[in-house]
Amino acid sequence: IAKEVAKLLEMKAQLGGDEGKHKFVLKTPKGTRDYSPKQMAIRERVFNAIITCFKRHGAEVIDTPVFELKETLTGKYGEDSKLIYDLKDQGGELLSLRYDLTVPFARYLAMNKITNIKRYHIAKVYRRDNPAMTRGRYREFYQCDFDIAGQFDPMIPDAECLKIVHEILSDLQLGDFVVKVNDRRILDGMFAVCGVTDSKFRTICSSVDKLDKMPWEEVRSEMVGEKGLSPEAADRIGEYVQLHGGLELIEQLLQDPKLSQNKLAKEGLGDMKLLFEYLTLFGITGKISFDLSLARGLDYYTGVIFEAVLLQQENDHVEEPVSVGSVAGGGRYDGLVGMFDPKGRKVPCVGVSIGIERIFSILEQRVEASEEKIRTTETQVLVASAQKKLLEERLKLISELWDAGIKAEMLYKKNPKLLNQLQYCEDTGIPLVAIVGEQELKDGVVKLRVVATREEVNIRRESLVEEIRMRTSRP
Amino acid sequence: IAKEVAKLLEMKAQLGGDEGKHKFVLKTPKGTRDYSPKQMAIRERVFNAIITCFKRHGAEVIDTPVFELKETLTGKYGEDSKLIYDLKDQGGELLSLRYDLTVPFARYLAMNKITNIKRYHIAKVYRRDNPAMTRGRYREFYQCDFDIAGQFDPMIPDAECLKIVHEILSDLQLGDFVVKVNDRRILDGMFAVCGVTDSKFRTICSSVDKLDKMPWEEVRSEMVGEKGLSPEAADRIGEYVQLHGGLELIEQLLQDPKLSQNKLAKEGLGDMKLLFEYLTLFGITGKISFDLSLARGLDYYTGVIFEAVLLQQENDHVEEPVSVGSVAGGGRYDGLVGMFDPKGRKVPCVGVSIGIERIFSILEQRVEASEEKIRTTETQVLVASAQKKLLEERLKLISELWDAGIKAEMLYKKNPKLLNQLQYCEDTGIPLVAIVGEQELKDGVVKLRVVATREEVNIRRESLVEEIRMRTSRP
Repeated sequence: IAKEVAKLLEMKAQLGGDEGKHKFVLKTPKGTRDYSPKQMAIRERVFNAIITCFKRHGAEVIDTPVFELKETLTGKYGEDSKLIYDLKDQGGELLSLRYDLTVPFARYLAMNKITNIKRYHIAKVYRRDNPAMTRGRYREFYQCDFDIAGQFDPMIPDAECLKIVHEILSDLQLGDFVVKVNDRRILDGMFAVCGVTDSKFRTICSSVDKLDKMPWEEVRSEMVGEKGLSPEAADRIGEYVQLHGGLELIEQLLQDPKLSQNKLAKEGLGDMKLLFEYLTLFGITGKISFDLSLARGLDYYTGVIFEAVLLQQENDHVEEPVSVGSVAGGGRYDGLVGMFDPKGRKVPCVGVSIGIERIFSILEQRVEASEEKIRTTETQVLVASAQKKLLEERLKLISELWDAGIKAEMLYKKNPKLLNQLQYCEDTGIPLVAIVGEQELKDGVVKLRVVATREEVNIRRESLVEEIRMRTSRP
Repeated sequence: IAKEVAKLLEMKAQLGGDEGKHKFVLKTPKGTRDYSPKQMAIRERVFNAIITCFKRHGAEVIDTPVFELKETLTGKYGEDSKLIYDLKDQGGELLSLRYDLTVPFARYLAMNKITNIKRYHIAKVYRRDNPAMTRGRYREFYQCDFDIAGQFDPMIPDAECLKIVHEILSDLQLGDFVVKVNDRRILDGMFAVCGVTDSKFRTICSSVDKLDKMPWEEVRSEMVGEKGLSPEAADRIGEYVQLHGGLELIEQLLQDPKLSQNKLAKEGLGDMKLLFEYLTLFGITGKISFDLSLARGLDYYTGVIFEAVLLQQENDHVEEPVSVGSVAGGGRYDGLVGMFDPKGRKVPCVGVSIGIERIFSILEQRVEASEEKIRTTETQVLVASAQKKLLEERLKLISELWDAGIKAEMLYKKNPKLLNQLQYCEDTGIPLVAIVGEQELKDGVVKLRVVATREEVNIRRESLVEEIRMRTSRP
C-alpha cells in the first residue's frame, strides 16, 4: 500500500496545479468509457443493422434490470463467477450487476412461466476482467442477444441463429469471417473416450476454451499440471482438437471407432449433420467451420456452441491494425431455465450474442482513417438574422418551424454576427439558413440560403415549411 | 434478526412445495421490474416522441458508464446522497451507480474540456428510495435528459428547455398539465428577507421542496422543529410560497418592498420577466405558472428551476386512477462543471429531464383499458406449408425472403399443421402467409394468403418479394 500511495503522490505531483481544492481524479471507472456524439453516431449505425436483422427474424424485445439478486447469478458461470460485480450491502437484498443477458433471460422465463418466445435484448453487461480497451475489451460493454426458447424439432432454431450471425456480419461489411461450430455433447463424448473422468469435464472444457489465445503446449501443461489430467489423455485430446472441416469431417467422426461408441458424441454428431444440411439450404456453409477446438467458457451450454471470428485480410496494411477476434458467440442451453423453475421444468433455449464493442472499435478506426465527416445532429435549418435587434423575430420563426416538425436551431445570442451563424452551419453540416431581416419582415418573406451553394432565394413565409421539407427530404 | 428470520421461514413455509433444491426467491430486485414485449412496444413509442423532439432542437447524443467513481458523486446531491447505490469494494476503485445523468454530464464536460454543447442522454439511473411501483416510482428508472451547456445571452436556452417540455407533453397527449417555474435566486432572496441565515438556505429549501407532498403545516413544523427556524421566519415564508401566477405576479414582486431590496431576488425576478417574454413569443405561457413554492430537491441548481405536473382531469373516472405528479423537471446549474474542473472554470448549463416511468404507467393503463391490440413484432409474412415433408422447401423460401430484406417467420416444426400456422398469424398479427405445396413447387408459384380476408392468390416465385413489399407497405 505504501508503495502504491507513493506512486499516486508522484503522479499527482506530475499533474501539478492542484491547490488542494479538487483532489479527485477526473476519469471514468477502469475499463469503462464515455461515448462522444461522433462515437454515438457510429454506434447507432451498428445497432440499426443488428436490430433490423433481429426484427427481420420476427423477434420481440424485452428488458431486465441492470442488477439481479446475487443468488440469481450464483452457480451459472463456472470459473468466470469471480468476475461478477457485487453491490455493497447497504441493508436489504444482496445484488450483483448482470454478467450477461442469458441468465437474466432464463430467470425472466421461469418467473413468468413462459415456455415459448423469440426475443432480442440489447443492453450493457459487466465483468471485472482485465480490460484491453484498444482491442475493444471493456468492463462495461454491450451485448446484443437473440434467443429462441421452446420445445421444437431439432436444429431448426439453431440453424436460424447461425443464419443471423451470417446476415449481421455480412451486412456490417467487417471483412472476411468464419463461424466456428461445435457441440458440448461432442466435446464431452470426446473427453470421455480420451479418458477424462466426468467430474473433470467442465474444467478441462475451460482449458480447451483457451486454445484461441494460447498455443496447445500451454493448454496441455495446464491440463496436466494444474488440472491433474494424465499426459496420455491430454495427447489424445490434442489430436481431436486439431480437427476442423465440414460435412465430410462429421461423416468421418461418425465412423470414428471410439467416438461412434459414445452415446453423447453420436447424438451431437447426428445433430451437427442435420445442422449442416439446414445451413446448406440457407447457402451459408462457406463461412461455417465445424471445429473441435471450440469449447466456449460458460458453464450453461448443453448442445451446439458457436463463435464468429474476423479473419485478418491478407491485403490489410492498416497502421495499427485492430486485433481480430471473436465478434459473436452463442449456443444451446437447455438446462438453464430449469435451474430457476421451482419444479425444475425445462425450457430448451438457443441463442446468439453479438459482441458490439469490437465491431465499434473496427468501424471507429475505419471512420478515422477515411476522414469521412459524420454529422452528429439532423438539424435541417438554422434560423438566423442579418441585423441586430431581431431576437424576438428569430424566436417567433423558430417556434413556428418547431411546431411544424422542422428540425431547427438558432444561436443563443441576442445579436449574433451573420458570419458566425454561417460558420456554425459549416461546422455542424446544417444545409439551410433561414434569414430574417427588416426588409424580409416587411415583405412577408424569409431569405433561404443553401449553405453548400451559397444560393439565396426569398420564400413567402407561409411556404417556408414546405420549402424546407422539400429541400431536405432524402431522394 | 431472529425475528426477521422467523418471518422469512414462515413466508417460505407458506410458499411450500420446496424440496430444498431451489431455495432462492424468483424475483427482480426490490424497486425494479422487467419489461415484457408489450411494455417495450409502449416504451418505444414514448422514447420515439421524446427523441424526435430532442433532435428537432438540434441535440447531439452522448452516453456515459452506469457507474462513476464514488467521489465523482460525493457532495453533489445534498440530503439525497444517502440514496446512492455503492458497489462492493472488490479491490480497485470505489464505485457508485449514477444517481442522475446531470452529474455524469458535468464530469464529462470537465474531463473533455467541452465548453459548448447541446446534447441528450437517455439512460437508467439508480436511487435507493422507497419504491411506489404502481405510481411509477422505481429504484431503477429511465431519465431522458436534454441540456444546453455554454456561455450565452440570458434565458434563451432556458426558454428552449421549457418549450421542449411543452412540446413533449403535448405530443404524448397525457392530458392537461402545468409547468411550474421558479428561480433559486428568488428562493434564496426570499429566505434572506424572511430572516433565514445563509447557512440554512439549502436545508430550508429541502423543506419547501416537500410542499407538493405535504401540507404547509407539516412543512412549517419541520422547519421550526427539526431545522431550528424561528416561527416568525417560517410564517413569512408561508406567505410567499402561496403565490403563483404569471407576468403580473413577477411585476408585483419586483415592487415588493422587501424582495426588491435583495440583490439575488431582484436578479432572479428580472430574468424571470425575460423568460416569460420569450415564452410569450413561443405561445406557451398558458401552461406555465411562476410558483414560489417550487424548490426542487437537488443541491446543484443555481438559477431557473421548473417542474411539469399532470393535472387530474375533472371528467376522469378511471377505476384506479394513476396518481398524477411530476413528469419532467430541470433547471440551471452554473456551478456544477466548475466543481470538476481542476482550475474551477465554470460552464453554465441548463437542462430538462423527462420522467419516463410515470408516463409509461399512464400509457400502459390506458392501453389496458382500451383493449387496443399492440403488435410486438413487425413480421410481414409467415412461410408455411400445407403438406408434410416440406421443411427443406420452407427453409429455402424463408432464406430467400430474409436475404431480400423481408421480415419473415416460420414454425420450428418439421411438419406443422396448416391450421396451427394460420392460428400463429392470428395470434401475433402477421398479415400474410406464403404457402408452399407440391403443386405450387411444380408450377413455380407460391400461394399468398391474406390473413384478414382469407383471400388466396398464386404469385410467381420471382415476384413474391415485390408482392409482399407492396402489400405490407404503409400507405
